[in-house]
Amino acid sequence: MKSSQQKLYGGIEAGGTKFVCAVGTGPGDVKAIDTFTTVSPESTLPRVVEFFRKETRTEPIAALGIASFGPLDLNPESTKYGRIISTPKPDWSGIDLPGYFRDKLSVPVFLDTDVNGAALAENTWGAARDVNSVVYITVGTGIGGGGIINGQLLRGISHPEMGHIRIPHDYNEDPFPGSCPYHGDCLEGLASGTAIQKRWGKLPEKIPAGHTAWKLEAKYLALAVVDYIYTLAPQRIVIGGGIMKTDGLLAEVREKVVELLHGYGSFPEVTEDIAEYIVRPGLGDLSGVLGAMTLARKSAEK
Amino acid sequence: MKSSQQKLYGGIEAGGTKFVCAVGTGPGDVKAIDTFTTVSPESTLPRVVEFFRKETRTEPIAALGIASFGPLDLNPESTKYGRIISTPKPDWSGIDLPGYFRDKLSVPVFLDTDVNGAALAENTWGAARDVNSVVYITVGTGIGGGGIINGQLLRGISHPEMGHIRIPHDYNEDPFPGSCPYHGDCLEGLASGTAIQKRWGKLPEKIPAGHTAWKLEAKYLALAVVDYIYTLAPQRIVIGGGIMKTDGLLAEVREKVVELLHGYGSFPEVTEDIAEYIVRPGLGDLSGVLGAMTLARKSAEK
Repeated sequence: MKSSQQKLYGGIEAGGTKFVCAVGTGPGDVKAIDTFTTVSPESTLPRVVEFFRKETRTEPIAALGIASFGPLDLNPESTKYGRIISTPKPDWSGIDLPGYFRDKLSVPVFLDTDVNGAALAENTWGAARDVNSVVYITVGTGIGGGGIINGQLLRGISHPEMGHIRIPHDYNEDPFPGSCPYHGDCLEGLASGTAIQKRWGKLPEKIPAGHTAWKLEAKYLALAVVDYIYTLAPQRIVIGGGIMKTDGLLAEVREKVVELLHGYGSFPEVTEDIAEYIVRPGLGDLSGVLGAMTLARKSAEK
Repeated sequence: MKSSQQKLYGGIEAGGTKFVCAVGTGPGDVKAIDTFTTVSPESTLPRVVEFFRKETRTEPIAALGIASFGPLDLNPESTKYGRIISTPKPDWSGIDLPGYFRDKLSVPVFLDTDVNGAALAENTWGAARDVNSVVYITVGTGIGGGGIINGQLLRGISHPEMGHIRIPHDYNEDPFPGSCPYHGDCLEGLASGTAIQKRWGKLPEKIPAGHTAWKLEAKYLALAVVDYIYTLAPQRIVIGGGIMKTDGLLAEVREKVVELLHGYGSFPEVTEDIAEYIVRPGLGDLSGVLGAMTLARKSAEK
């Protein structure tokens, strides 16, 4: 039930493989949504502009939010604020998404990472709407994490890069050196879809449940989750992404987290009800674009 | 220069070895300060009460802040909120410091961890007063960390326990299994003063600069700092505690952090000016008690 006073907002989930664009007020009220394959900026971005021009002809949007792949320059003091920093997708390096859309659509534009966007969406509408601090992790081709702390998006000198923390790596158990081009065996280098594929020589979806691969995966993800808990003490952890769809993996991560915390100190709420603490996204594949829309609304309301 | 309108606040740094108590408005205006050795609660706490009764006879304090050792139960939904949780100091387990002082002194009392207190003091008066996100780490007998994110104290389901993150541990290089009774080779188990003493069989202050011990120590601390950077993206890291007084250690930590970040992504501000990014406390040994005082002021003003 949308009151006639509710403003419309636009959201873009800018991903490495696709751009998801939507106009609406929230999850129950998406007026229009479309998806475009990510190719070069020259051919992708005009299609996005066309979508918003068409869908806002009768009613304008009050603001546009972008939840983007990165790394992004989100240091407010930087002259390159808002730009995509050097990325494996060379065409996109240096692209100023907010500047581009502000220019073409003449609306206020707000930017954050895809994972901060998803954290915001889950906190506003999804699996973390009853708390004011949450970490959102996605485990797919890469690994990323974002968060809300004391009700605010987790940003500082720029945005977190949670996928790149260093965790214990036992070379006797797992001689794979890691796949991260920057760090070798950081979390992403050990536990991303890319790492799994390189280590086992096959696509993650071809590796059956019960395979040693998943025991190792659960251990690495649990080590990372424990580091996030000890560093941020979030009230909930939401963990999504394609790899997490593997049968039994989430259950094994939860079990291993409890084992690693080892009953220490101030987190009885975590260990006593781990299935309520580490959860799947409530918004499924829509958390990115809904997060972008929510970012637009919350930033514009400030 | 204190205007006559400025209210007085009380601060207690509750530590495992001493309680530091003060009355004042800030670092330049401490009216009274005293230190008591931490023995049992029965003999320590009445001395603290006596101090505040005496020092507030002519002018009352508007509120009292406590920056305490822990772990503490800081989950607002817990029935044990404010209590010290099971700690190696058995007399102190279950003690409700805020309840006790509220009862004895009839003032509003606010509680946080010693390290969150120090982070707040450094952010308000010290080495991080020009930013709105900072991580404060202390490396002493144990290792702890606290933080300010978006201008607010870092708390969620409870407080962080940054000293207990898991970091890479190469048993070939360092066969020491770690000294943490809960986790073995977590950060505290590998890099605290206690760990150093157990590994090398002598007190840290007896180990000369240049010894292998310090190269290893710098590596472990740098691995942890990198994890905090990737998880929180703070605008500054303040690192204090007795162990950090070792000649050359801070410089080596900085160098190793730059090496481990490996120029990745969105943190050029960190690597380009690491000596301005990872810094010593600006308030020295007073950051705890001043943090407690600041906690009282900021919480009371809310």
